[in-house]
Amino acid sequence: MDELPGSVGTSASFSLRLGQTIFSSASLLFMSMGVEFYSYTAFCYLVTIMGLVIPWSFTLALVDGYSVLVRRPIRQQGVLIIIVVGDWVLSILTLAAACSSASVIDVLLHSGGSNCPPKFCSRYQVSAAMAFLAWFLSSATSLFNFWLLSSL
Amino acid sequence: MDELPGSVGTSASFSLRLGQTIFSSASLLFMSMGVEFYSYTAFCYLVTIMGLVIPWSFTLALVDGYSVLVRRPIRQQGVLIIIVVGDWVLSILTLAAACSSASVIDVLLHSGGSNCPPKFCSRYQVSAAMAFLAWFLSSATSLFNFWLLSSL
Repeated sequence: MDELPGSVGTSASFSLRLGQTIFSSASLLFMSMGVEFYSYTAFCYLVTIMGLVIPWSFTLALVDGYSVLVRRPIRQQGVLIIIVVGDWVLSILTLAAACSSASVIDVLLHSGGSNCPPKFCSRYQVSAAMAFLAWFLSSATSLFNFWLLSSL
Repeated sequence: MDELPGSVGTSASFSLRLGQTIFSSASLLFMSMGVEFYSYTAFCYLVTIMGLVIPWSFTLALVDGYSVLVRRPIRQQGVLIIIVVGDWVLSILTLAAACSSASVIDVLLHSGGSNCPPKFCSRYQVSAAMAFLAWFLSSATSLFNFWLLSSL
């Protein structure tokens, strides 16, 4: 069969994974450098999920890089199922975390005053934006791999 | 090809669509009967999205019911693509709305006091729970139809 761009073991997939790793790390850093993140459940949740996404994306980036180098894309159904399910679950969790954080930030901005000093609030916003980008890339890889799986 | 349970035009799909319609209507009702929903962006967003999901699910429930009655499942690729994309977009929006509302409710519950009278807060909670159920059913139909589309 033709190689599907974006499915596991291609260079497009490698770029997507690298993007996920970078955006989720950025989201984690911006959130945890703002020292008061543990006072809101949504922010703790975002940090937890980003802590799951980073190793997952990084590992798969390594796998993709390796299989691009040796020019042997992965086509085992079992491996693909694990990757698709993992990606799908993580992309849902990432979206949930990003939306929760964004709406908490919105409430904080509207309540104003001491709840949201400008320095922290802009960090929270950048963090949520990065989480949205990580979700977007993650759902893209999930869709590509699902398509590949169903056409095997 | 064999008929895939849950894909468009089957009785399983009809039940899923009916479930979506019921849960999203319940979510909309619980949220708009609590009269202060317009003071939070996340709640307005939930109401908007539910207003989109209800007609979409109801129309497709009618289509499914009709094609179960005449025993002719839909297999046109163009129609399937529209249904899959619509389902996918709406399920993402529903999840985003449910998570945002849930996290705003969490903030309101923790801030306590006059922000969240028990009568309203429990309504908000039920509404968010119903939105999560609607999302679950919606993503299920989206996956089934995507699988059918890729195997056509």
